[in-house]
Amino acid sequence: MTLPAFGFSVQARDGAARHGRLTCAHGTVETPAFMPVGTAGTVKGLRSGEIAASGTEIVLANTYHLMLRPGAERIARLGGLHAFMNWPRPILTDSGGFQVMSLAELRKITERGVTFRSHVDGRPHALTPERAVEIQDLLGVDISMVLDECTPFPIAGAEAGESMRLSLRWAARCKTAFPGHPGRGLFGIVQGSVYPELRRESAAGLIDIGFHGYAVGGLAVGEGQETMLKVLEETVPILPEERPRYLMGVGKPDDLVRAVQRGIDMFDCVLPTRSGRTGQAFTRRGEVNLRNARHKDDPRPLDPESPNPELRQYSRAYLHHLVRSGEMLGPILLSLHNLTYYQELMAGLRAAIAEGRLAAFVADFEAEQAAGDLPPL
Amino acid sequence: MTLPAFGFSVQARDGAARHGRLTCAHGTVETPAFMPVGTAGTVKGLRSGEIAASGTEIVLANTYHLMLRPGAERIARLGGLHAFMNWPRPILTDSGGFQVMSLAELRKITERGVTFRSHVDGRPHALTPERAVEIQDLLGVDISMVLDECTPFPIAGAEAGESMRLSLRWAARCKTAFPGHPGRGLFGIVQGSVYPELRRESAAGLIDIGFHGYAVGGLAVGEGQETMLKVLEETVPILPEERPRYLMGVGKPDDLVRAVQRGIDMFDCVLPTRSGRTGQAFTRRGEVNLRNARHKDDPRPLDPESPNPELRQYSRAYLHHLVRSGEMLGPILLSLHNLTYYQELMAGLRAAIAEGRLAAFVADFEAEQAAGDLPPL
Repeated sequence: MTLPAFGFSVQARDGAARHGRLTCAHGTVETPAFMPVGTAGTVKGLRSGEIAASGTEIVLANTYHLMLRPGAERIARLGGLHAFMNWPRPILTDSGGFQVMSLAELRKITERGVTFRSHVDGRPHALTPERAVEIQDLLGVDISMVLDECTPFPIAGAEAGESMRLSLRWAARCKTAFPGHPGRGLFGIVQGSVYPELRRESAAGLIDIGFHGYAVGGLAVGEGQETMLKVLEETVPILPEERPRYLMGVGKPDDLVRAVQRGIDMFDCVLPTRSGRTGQAFTRRGEVNLRNARHKDDPRPLDPESPNPELRQYSRAYLHHLVRSGEMLGPILLSLHNLTYYQELMAGLRAAIAEGRLAAFVADFEAEQAAGDLPPL
Repeated sequence: MTLPAFGFSVQARDGAARHGRLTCAHGTVETPAFMPVGTAGTVKGLRSGEIAASGTEIVLANTYHLMLRPGAERIARLGGLHAFMNWPRPILTDSGGFQVMSLAELRKITERGVTFRSHVDGRPHALTPERAVEIQDLLGVDISMVLDECTPFPIAGAEAGESMRLSLRWAARCKTAFPGHPGRGLFGIVQGSVYPELRRESAAGLIDIGFHGYAVGGLAVGEGQETMLKVLEETVPILPEERPRYLMGVGKPDDLVRAVQRGIDMFDCVLPTRSGRTGQAFTRRGEVNLRNARHKDDPRPLDPESPNPELRQYSRAYLHHLVRSGEMLGPILLSLHNLTYYQELMAGLRAAIAEGRLAAFVADFEAEQAAGDLPPL
């Protein structure tokens, strides 16, 4: 099967790391790229302009949430997900599989697909590979993901193999069902848990089917960074050099850095916004908990070097006060701070790869993280 | 006692209505003015830039909340409330009296002041007229309010009279305690419930003490619009023509319009933000409940004529989805919408007064409100 036009070009390499450019229907995305998660069609607490100003070029939305509420057909009638959420740039949707496994009730998996009851209103739903692709087409997103079965961790090899082969058969059905509008891509997902031979079988099967990009799935499920990086080292080299590689659901800043060093081009994670809602900040100096009483008299900004001048205007004392008082502005400002830091880190990685100085960049990153937060006043 | 410099000048009159200009330490405020409520040092869900962009020139913050958390002395050490909340323009604080009555536990009122326990952590606190003024001075606000006793509604005349006279004695003590930095003003509060003779006694007593402005307190407590307007008609004419008049805690758009017609210059109310958090919008076409299912397929903006171009980019269907899904962006966008509409209304009132066409403006306003929301598609 041939693939419709969907652009990815590697601009520069530094070791296994690459700096590339995705070209999709709604614009270009410089990689390595971080995608904030807009679960229900909104990156929680942030508006389009703020998301874009953070340096974000692509967001992820969740098929599972949107199919249940407000419904894919409704979003299509309203002009598609870009118009609906007022985000004119590229969007990637997951297939819904992961959320069905983690959120839905009474789920039942068969060869045909998965049936379940909505966690919103208890109504029965079915998700097949064909329907997952159709929903993402109705949403009109730039990158669709194949429906796969997400296995828990740990899982025995035999079970992981069976699940992976079911996901492969579903992937082939997704490819067949994919309408392939120009500028819209379909990504396969490599499964196989921590078993190298299963990862190889999965990757080979997906490459045989042929996709616009390849995701590494089934990680960030509790296996730990060391195991995750080992899987990447075994899996990334067997993925096609000319296609984007996406590590799903990852991660903390140093996860991103280490995965980029191993050849990953794309990431998504709820951490910047979810942590922001609990008062936790990611900074160039490591993690900072704004609930901590040591901030209550601190007039300094959370990050004196933040590229966002507005964020430099709020003191740690004020952020502490907002978090302790349960004020919405705390999650808003901390989500924006975290996303801004993530995107600054990605920009730094891209520039370092382009200039062949990734090792030095990573050494600086690690030293700064290890040095820890600002000393008390 | 003489008053320190604090500017107010009436620019234009139309009937009893006035268009004026307040000049305080942190800038000028065109009146009639609406002050959004930043209870704990944050107008819930909105950032400084957004608040200013809505046309807001002055915000209100609550002494009661700030004295309990994070504490007035702490805010003073951090450079004052303007720096703390990153709002460089004028701020008015209430005295804390109203919240002590409505929120605090174990409150006890004596001639000296009020003692109570914090609703945050149960610790004992005392608020005297002198301390209320001191706190507001530590916060560094542009307009301080005298401590008064807020009576419930309904209340017998004898009791209302006793309370009003206690408030008068407290007002005199506030005036004595007021340090009077240039550009900072102290406002008295007329009490007396629905009793004209008590309102007159209160106003005369306050004028005798001498304040930079005069508030009408004890309204918007369940007495209804008709009674409220009657009290204004009896009270406003006896207030000094050359001082600003502030109606506390009011109200809905048509409350504002009618109070402006009766000579009120300033308002504060939680409604734009509180209603925004529950999915309720105030529009030129009346109140619109975004939770209502009739919006779920409506691609039109909430207000096609909104002066904020960003707000015109979000459909009613999307706002409905956000509200139904409990997403933070719903309250954020609706609070911003409501505040934008309130400020647009105030700007319209100011222009109409300046041009001597207030009656026509009010007739148009009433006709548009009565016409109701956009017809279904």
